[in-house]
Amino acid sequence: MSKQITLAHGNGGGAMQALISGVFVSAFDNPLLATGEDQARLALSELNALGDRLAFTTDSYVVDPLFFPGGDIGKLAVCGTANDLAVSGATPRWLSCGFILEEGLALETLEAVVRSMADTARGAGIQIITGDTKVVPRGAVDKLFINTAGLGVIPATVEWGVTAIRPGDSILVSGTLGDHGATILNLRENLGMEADLSSDCAVLAPLIAPLRDIAGIRTLRDATRGGVTAILHEFARGSGCGMTVDEAALPVKTTVRGICELLGLDALNFANEGKLLLVVEAAAEQQVLQALRRHPLGRDAAVIGRVTDDKQVRLRGLYGVSRILDLPHDEPLPRIC
Amino acid sequence: MSKQITLAHGNGGGAMQALISGVFVSAFDNPLLATGEDQARLALSELNALGDRLAFTTDSYVVDPLFFPGGDIGKLAVCGTANDLAVSGATPRWLSCGFILEEGLALETLEAVVRSMADTARGAGIQIITGDTKVVPRGAVDKLFINTAGLGVIPATVEWGVTAIRPGDSILVSGTLGDHGATILNLRENLGMEADLSSDCAVLAPLIAPLRDIAGIRTLRDATRGGVTAILHEFARGSGCGMTVDEAALPVKTTVRGICELLGLDALNFANEGKLLLVVEAAAEQQVLQALRRHPLGRDAAVIGRVTDDKQVRLRGLYGVSRILDLPHDEPLPRIC
Repeated sequence: MSKQITLAHGNGGGAMQALISGVFVSAFDNPLLATGEDQARLALSELNALGDRLAFTTDSYVVDPLFFPGGDIGKLAVCGTANDLAVSGATPRWLSCGFILEEGLALETLEAVVRSMADTARGAGIQIITGDTKVVPRGAVDKLFINTAGLGVIPATVEWGVTAIRPGDSILVSGTLGDHGATILNLRENLGMEADLSSDCAVLAPLIAPLRDIAGIRTLRDATRGGVTAILHEFARGSGCGMTVDEAALPVKTTVRGICELLGLDALNFANEGKLLLVVEAAAEQQVLQALRRHPLGRDAAVIGRVTDDKQVRLRGLYGVSRILDLPHDEPLPRIC
Repeated sequence: MSKQITLAHGNGGGAMQALISGVFVSAFDNPLLATGEDQARLALSELNALGDRLAFTTDSYVVDPLFFPGGDIGKLAVCGTANDLAVSGATPRWLSCGFILEEGLALETLEAVVRSMADTARGAGIQIITGDTKVVPRGAVDKLFINTAGLGVIPATVEWGVTAIRPGDSILVSGTLGDHGATILNLRENLGMEADLSSDCAVLAPLIAPLRDIAGIRTLRDATRGGVTAILHEFARGSGCGMTVDEAALPVKTTVRGICELLGLDALNFANEGKLLLVVEAAAEQQVLQALRRHPLGRDAAVIGRVTDDKQVRLRGLYGVSRILDLPHDEPLPRIC
């Protein structure tokens, strides 16, 4: 096999078969992997044993650079889609993956990304069971993009969703805000703050699983693109309620805070790749907080605010004055995920 | 909304929400569409009523140009993934879609593609129920790529697969070969043969559905990238059998044959986007042929060869001499699908 990706690696012929078996199948190896057929096949009996609803989601990953402290595009492509399943209460189990590769990409770059996907999936009990590879001529794509779609099953006892939110509910986050966004920003803008900065990219399913046994959970969501601000707006739009968060309660690492002050940006708008925003009944607040803190991924969990009945998303500042928290309309940092 | 796609359309904020509701949700509108949540949710009871196995597949679409006679990237993104489900015997029912858009793309281009996806899906009884949009800066992608992943359920009575193939079985195609590949080649190389040339891009599920009631079907596959040659090799590899096809029996349109002769290429290697290659028990050959011909998508169906026990893929020429049909190793036409 050549040391670079060529157009022949995407043409359905011998070079593509060699790439599939030599790189993808050997890394993703599992009994369900669709190697001989055009589709993976899952016994519904296995799904029925896990719950009563199938969760299905997709995301494309275009992050630049491909590798960053704490992760890479492959790890992100597993975590991001797994988390979009897990926040429904489903255990993420099966992924598809579609690669779009630029002619001339170093084969070892692809191999490193695929290894990272395989390791992340295996560590989370997820199988990558069907896939596709396209190669496009130089210049038609920047290096390497990945799409994953994911499947999981929601237990019959879990009924989480944005419409369950009520005024008086508590708003929690599972840890420090903006780590992923600040890490990418630091790399891309050459800010030089290497020391303490690392993406929080992680599969959140093990943090979420114990929450399925707690009554009073309204909804949860991972705060990726657009950060906590975007999710607060999604919660407000979906529930018809308002959201007020307290600036003083927001967990933000010192380095991330420094980057924000340097550039005049707000960590609330920064992307996270391993943080939950949760809305829970006020009576369940402490039980949820303790459950989150028991897991390493949730040790910095905090109550950050409360659901209101005024339909607005507000940030209450350090001196008690609250202001409207608008959705940003421009794009400070493309290709964050 | 601006007339061009901007980076803000991908940032998780207000412009992205406007794009999602104004373009995607209004076109794909259906009760399952994941608008308020990060994942679509399907009742397993509904799946159980359709069969006993879930089929799951994915493909990315990077075709150039975006619009061509007979279709466009949106129609292709529905047909291609639907067909990869349908060849398992499943009825394709649910799709995810992930868009990667280039900053500066004309909004009306995106709208036309999305409309075409929606029309194709609706016509085939398919719902697009979850999606994702990324926007990347100018030059990081060429205009517009789409990924779709698909779900369908395989009836308990259907057990099609490549390992069922046996020596003596008949090989059939559902219609003329190479129409899609020749159409794209004609456009890209400015060959000027406009008259009779059109992509065969179609959802094949209605052609396949009646075959589920016929005994003796071994396996079917849609012959896309790499054409019939690539599928014959997949069948040979998966079954351990040989495949011999007769040159005289191959249905090829006159215009496509002309392009092949002009460029010294072989229609057997050209991509199709609406053609099946089938292997069936010899005793079922005529029944399958009649079933295919009863549907407009199969009116040019033909028996083209036979499965052998010599493990080789062969083409028997017009004078009875057979030669090995190799998988092409280079790439004559990137971005065909």
